[in-house]
Amino acid sequence: MRLVVIGGVAAGMSAAARARRLDQYAEIVVLEKGDVVSYGACGLPYFVEGRVRDWRKLVAYTPERFSSERNVTVRTGAEVVQISNARRSVRLAGGEEVGYDRLVIATGARMNLSSVSVAPGSAVFSMNTPPEAERLRLHLDRTAPGHAVVVGGGYIGLEAVDALRANGWRVTLLQAGGNLLHREDEHLTQTLVSHLSRFHVSVMLHRRAGLIAPGRVDDIACDLVLLAPGLKPNAEMAADAGVELGRSGAIRTTDRMETNLPGVYAAGDCAEVQHLVTSRSAWIPLGTTANKMGRVAGACAAGARESFAGVVGTSIVRVCGLGVATTGLSLAQAKSEGFDAVSERVEANDKPSYFAGKPLSVELVADRRSGRLLGGTVIGEQGAEGRINVLATALHGRMKVSDLEQLDLSYAPPFSTVWDPVLIAAQQMIKKLNW
Amino acid sequence: MRLVVIGGVAAGMSAAARARRLDQYAEIVVLEKGDVVSYGACGLPYFVEGRVRDWRKLVAYTPERFSSERNVTVRTGAEVVQISNARRSVRLAGGEEVGYDRLVIATGARMNLSSVSVAPGSAVFSMNTPPEAERLRLHLDRTAPGHAVVVGGGYIGLEAVDALRANGWRVTLLQAGGNLLHREDEHLTQTLVSHLSRFHVSVMLHRRAGLIAPGRVDDIACDLVLLAPGLKPNAEMAADAGVELGRSGAIRTTDRMETNLPGVYAAGDCAEVQHLVTSRSAWIPLGTTANKMGRVAGACAAGARESFAGVVGTSIVRVCGLGVATTGLSLAQAKSEGFDAVSERVEANDKPSYFAGKPLSVELVADRRSGRLLGGTVIGEQGAEGRINVLATALHGRMKVSDLEQLDLSYAPPFSTVWDPVLIAAQQMIKKLNW
Repeated sequence: MRLVVIGGVAAGMSAAARARRLDQYAEIVVLEKGDVVSYGACGLPYFVEGRVRDWRKLVAYTPERFSSERNVTVRTGAEVVQISNARRSVRLAGGEEVGYDRLVIATGARMNLSSVSVAPGSAVFSMNTPPEAERLRLHLDRTAPGHAVVVGGGYIGLEAVDALRANGWRVTLLQAGGNLLHREDEHLTQTLVSHLSRFHVSVMLHRRAGLIAPGRVDDIACDLVLLAPGLKPNAEMAADAGVELGRSGAIRTTDRMETNLPGVYAAGDCAEVQHLVTSRSAWIPLGTTANKMGRVAGACAAGARESFAGVVGTSIVRVCGLGVATTGLSLAQAKSEGFDAVSERVEANDKPSYFAGKPLSVELVADRRSGRLLGGTVIGEQGAEGRINVLATALHGRMKVSDLEQLDLSYAPPFSTVWDPVLIAAQQMIKKLNW
Repeated sequence: MRLVVIGGVAAGMSAAARARRLDQYAEIVVLEKGDVVSYGACGLPYFVEGRVRDWRKLVAYTPERFSSERNVTVRTGAEVVQISNARRSVRLAGGEEVGYDRLVIATGARMNLSSVSVAPGSAVFSMNTPPEAERLRLHLDRTAPGHAVVVGGGYIGLEAVDALRANGWRVTLLQAGGNLLHREDEHLTQTLVSHLSRFHVSVMLHRRAGLIAPGRVDDIACDLVLLAPGLKPNAEMAADAGVELGRSGAIRTTDRMETNLPGVYAAGDCAEVQHLVTSRSAWIPLGTTANKMGRVAGACAAGARESFAGVVGTSIVRVCGLGVATTGLSLAQAKSEGFDAVSERVEANDKPSYFAGKPLSVELVADRRSGRLLGGTVIGEQGAEGRINVLATALHGRMKVSDLEQLDLSYAPPFSTVWDPVLIAAQQMIKKLNW
């Protein structure tokens, strides 16, 4: 059995490793169009920041090591340009055909630059791949800090703000829509905007970048432009081969990561995944999910019966010292999904003041009738990650707010308050609704 | 309706406050034998340490404020010595009788000193109440640091170690049994013992303190003795009045915090609670649980229909910088409870090294046949509290290890690794058992 994996980053490498573990005889080939595989793309902003001195430290495996330790052939610079499922083969840019018995498509996503034009000579950068991040890092090393414009207010855009500020740059952030972090949540956006303003980062909402030219973005003068717009799935080649896409434009998958074509799997940022709160397919490109999908795709391609139930939509980002974490649905999203949704937000210290407690904002979203938890947002300088994980776990368990209120969470003064902010939020919501 | 609450700390004050919220007409009387109510007993070790300068900062409400804001009569120095349920009244130490329509017993717990004799003139202290903590704090202020013996290796004993070390004392910890933190878990105990030894704290297991005399505990010379032995519930008076006790010696309660006597409720450290993993009653005296039980006791005493499902046995302590957190059952406990239990332990960094990640040990205990999670232990200098709360929430949701493996936990490099240690532990257990 020959398994071919297209793409050698999170999902692809997870798939290859997992397939090898379950089938020691299969021939496994990873085809990666770039020069580097198995890198932690989520670490690249911290390489640009200067915290990670060498991006090679973000690489878990070299092709050679993966090959020698896992007996998987990893070919870099191998860009697949066509999938022919009828012939069970893929064609590389140079014309070479590589046959497969089973195929895992892990082609990732790319920046959605449809509305942006870049004039020649512009100082435009991104942090999507190691070479791009390295080019930016070199530029920061060689250039006096000035004014940078970051295009895109998703989590990469916000991480870019921190990376540039750490290098002494003044930053303006442009976001095409009215929400930051791709979350329909006015409070979250306003909290971030006012937090960023305290660090002299100016955020312009509803501001789509049009023409990037030397020294400016439209009418905004700047010395550097960092592109971090939304992503789009690299799914066109799969679609051309007859792989069915979902409404998002990403590849539709089953819980075994199967596409509609037998023996062809998809995983990672090019694929849709089940959203466990809405019970519908969603496209949420994130490294954690890509790894989980990759593992299951690899296992199933190797003949095992594994499945990936889906995600609840958890994410977290730190910007200017503030942790901003979300899971499940925002109030607006829940209403769009047809829930009779309500929300309640509390502010409470994460720890006692004598252990340097800081305010934490916890917002819960729930279904009014059933009391089921639908989502949550936790924002604070410390302790956001632990609380959002409690809410994410509760979403997996389809818990009600009344279950949440009774959770036996850990308490000692160095770690939390006797009533954890999550419990206080649950109490307040129950009180408000007279449940 | 007159509601009498015996005890004015966590459970008692929660009960009184909740009853008042739900019934604005009831007469509510709290009888507290000490001079202080509504104090955070969990903060007393940090007052002894010197981090909290004044123990009054640990007091949420004075009797006067509770009375004026909540319209609850709070009597301090009012020790109840007898409950006569036939006459619906309690008798105070001075002979006064106080009648009730409904009664909440929140008499707490006391140190179990049955095996210890104290000779006159010994420098013996504890941290159980504000006056005791204050006496110790004054002694530390006035005495040159020397060698302290802490009797008892539960969480209060361990917090005492930190408090004394912070004041320059050399510490020896005596534990009557073979386990620290009352948890049948050899790895946990050994980890703590070796961690403490790095801080020159000597731990003697299987060492029961017998005679405490001036300058020594048995044959151990010392300058100060801090008593932090196990607790026993203050349930005798309730038992004398016909209230049924459980096997633990604490008061048996329903999920509405009712005792066997109609209209008589119990809450807090004097009462048993349901353990959601074993589905049996357990006695686990902790402030968080006391508050939750108190709220429900107060609500039900006021005529509402609320319930407290129970606990999963979560606790956490920090000692010499190490966070030690447990939830559910240890392997040994799970086996004693009749489960075909297995455990798996991994060590993984809580964050990437470029964000100062530190090793975190995560142990899971599960039922072999069903795969159900039964418990967990998380130990590390940072990030233990968040992970134990994920496991506690999973226990509430009766999740399997295979559910745990798929949790959509938050990830960004400042907060965690792409595979959270909890997910790695779940993966390893699944791998080991070929589930």
